[in-house]
Amino acid sequence: MSEEAESPFRPGATCTFGTDPSAFPQWRRDPVVGRWVIVAPERATRPHPKHAPQSLVGAGDDCPFCVGHEDRTPIEIAAYREPGAQPPSDWLVRVVPNRYPAVKEAGDLQHGRGGLHEHCTGVGIHEVIVDCPAHRTSMATEPRRQFRALVEIYRDRVGAIGRDPRLKYGMLFKNVGAAGGASLEHPHSQLIGIPMIPHFVAEELAGGRRFMQAQGRCVWCALAEQEHWQGERVIWEGRKVIAFAPYASRVPYEVWVLPRRHASHFERAGDDILDDLADAFKAVMTKLERATGVPGYNVVLHTAPYHTGELADFHWHWEFIPRLTTLAGFEWGTGQTINPVPPEQAAAEMRRC
Amino acid sequence: MSEEAESPFRPGATCTFGTDPSAFPQWRRDPVVGRWVIVAPERATRPHPKHAPQSLVGAGDDCPFCVGHEDRTPIEIAAYREPGAQPPSDWLVRVVPNRYPAVKEAGDLQHGRGGLHEHCTGVGIHEVIVDCPAHRTSMATEPRRQFRALVEIYRDRVGAIGRDPRLKYGMLFKNVGAAGGASLEHPHSQLIGIPMIPHFVAEELAGGRRFMQAQGRCVWCALAEQEHWQGERVIWEGRKVIAFAPYASRVPYEVWVLPRRHASHFERAGDDILDDLADAFKAVMTKLERATGVPGYNVVLHTAPYHTGELADFHWHWEFIPRLTTLAGFEWGTGQTINPVPPEQAAAEMRRC
Repeated sequence: MSEEAESPFRPGATCTFGTDPSAFPQWRRDPVVGRWVIVAPERATRPHPKHAPQSLVGAGDDCPFCVGHEDRTPIEIAAYREPGAQPPSDWLVRVVPNRYPAVKEAGDLQHGRGGLHEHCTGVGIHEVIVDCPAHRTSMATEPRRQFRALVEIYRDRVGAIGRDPRLKYGMLFKNVGAAGGASLEHPHSQLIGIPMIPHFVAEELAGGRRFMQAQGRCVWCALAEQEHWQGERVIWEGRKVIAFAPYASRVPYEVWVLPRRHASHFERAGDDILDDLADAFKAVMTKLERATGVPGYNVVLHTAPYHTGELADFHWHWEFIPRLTTLAGFEWGTGQTINPVPPEQAAAEMRRC
Repeated sequence: MSEEAESPFRPGATCTFGTDPSAFPQWRRDPVVGRWVIVAPERATRPHPKHAPQSLVGAGDDCPFCVGHEDRTPIEIAAYREPGAQPPSDWLVRVVPNRYPAVKEAGDLQHGRGGLHEHCTGVGIHEVIVDCPAHRTSMATEPRRQFRALVEIYRDRVGAIGRDPRLKYGMLFKNVGAAGGASLEHPHSQLIGIPMIPHFVAEELAGGRRFMQAQGRCVWCALAEQEHWQGERVIWEGRKVIAFAPYASRVPYEVWVLPRRHASHFERAGDDILDDLADAFKAVMTKLERATGVPGYNVVLHTAPYHTGELADFHWHWEFIPRLTTLAGFEWGTGQTINPVPPEQAAAEMRRC
């Protein structure tokens, strides 16, 4: 963490914003983890192979997530049903165990070491959240109440699995489209509870702590305030929640969504925050899909680790990561990306959509 | 860096090696940077969309890298020619500027800051290395002298651009196949000189320093020794160089290649090391392509930053990263991967090929 924190900047140097073409290519630095990205619009003109669409398990009898197919999934863990609904098929959102879990739910967390090598048993929880009853290629056209039900299930499931003392973190994410790594088309999300703090979240925790020590406040609170004030990267704003393109966006059309008011644990979010978050999700998905032509994206939640009190230096947030570009050797070697679309341009396009 | 370094291991717990099926899924930890991976062989059985092949710029008149097409690239920067060779077309390896550079070579490194946001001018050097004269879909069938010429050019170019005082690091990498992010089929490599230490290299430098403080030696020296002694993850061994599947491989068939004897700067490697490295490259590419069916991979060099003396706690190494799996929300959210093929199994297959 220390090397990339070493900055080539001299204090008092000039500040440049906006999309002045002569400013690119430009190196930009993520204010939280210190990771650099190169914003290189001219790079978009290089010849590149066309992305051939991959095939997903689509609509019809094959889809295990469609309403009426409840018997094709493992037994329901939880569901969002409106008052008076008739189980099993009358639901808005449904949660089931993953049929092909990456981790195993049963067993103790046992550890081993052999020389340099450490391992532990593959303990964890892997749930699938079916985002809506009807088959869709995109959630974005669903009504607002569907999003409201979904974010409420998100909050409740992240909280519920956190009661397992073996787990340190609940990773909630959504894969959309083949480019996003989805194998089933029907809108769904996944929650994987794991016995360690994810590598990227650990970096963010360290970055948040560093900023707090230097500036005496939460870096995400400062970011939300600065983006609101500058405006050029804002994509959507509600009373409680803001969505913007991060200054050092790793990929074209990246979006971060976070509550304006400080909060470290998503599973403790109040109903008023969820109201705004549902609107933010619907707006961001609609704008993202229109601006990019829906090739695929990922949505991930970064929240505080389990079994901790409120943290003054961590702030929960959602990251929308469109998958328009291919990671290649530079990205795998450096952990940094080449982004051909300036975030200010991406944000302007998404605001218009 | 500190959170992921927090280990759930109790001292004195038992040690498990090998591919006992009941041992999976299993969490494994990278000994350098502390990143966890879940090794989950059962995960490979889940239904997944087939990868449709993408189209590359192939052989024929369109290929700017084929011998005889020297006038279709920018002016040659360097080349490897045998004694008595006749320029321009008589070459084994050729280096030219990238026609679509991600960074710009001209200009000073100038810095700016606006509130939380930092940037600097997109300064850097972006070279393309044409790995062989004839059009091939794979380097692996090239003779040994071709690999020897290639690794010598690698060493010399990494050293040459490092004389630029604006640069802190030379990122050398190779994209193979559409899945590896290549847009041109003709075997080629790229070298991007950048004005900061890459994020991943900074993590490794910190990990190497941590291990040195704790154990009094280089973690990669210790790793090479342990892998040689255990043998089950070794893929190829020469007198000076070893290739093995890392214990916490991020992806199926990942391979690391490093000198047995400590050395921090690749650009200072002696001719004897290059002899062995050429053999290692040919062996690993052949085995990797046979074992995986050549869908695409990346090769990256991690070496010490420029303008530093020999480092006792960093050790140059090459990483071969096959691109058989799709990164999805879990990977983008955590910075950790789900690897469906145990490295011991991958190594055994590659040894046989």
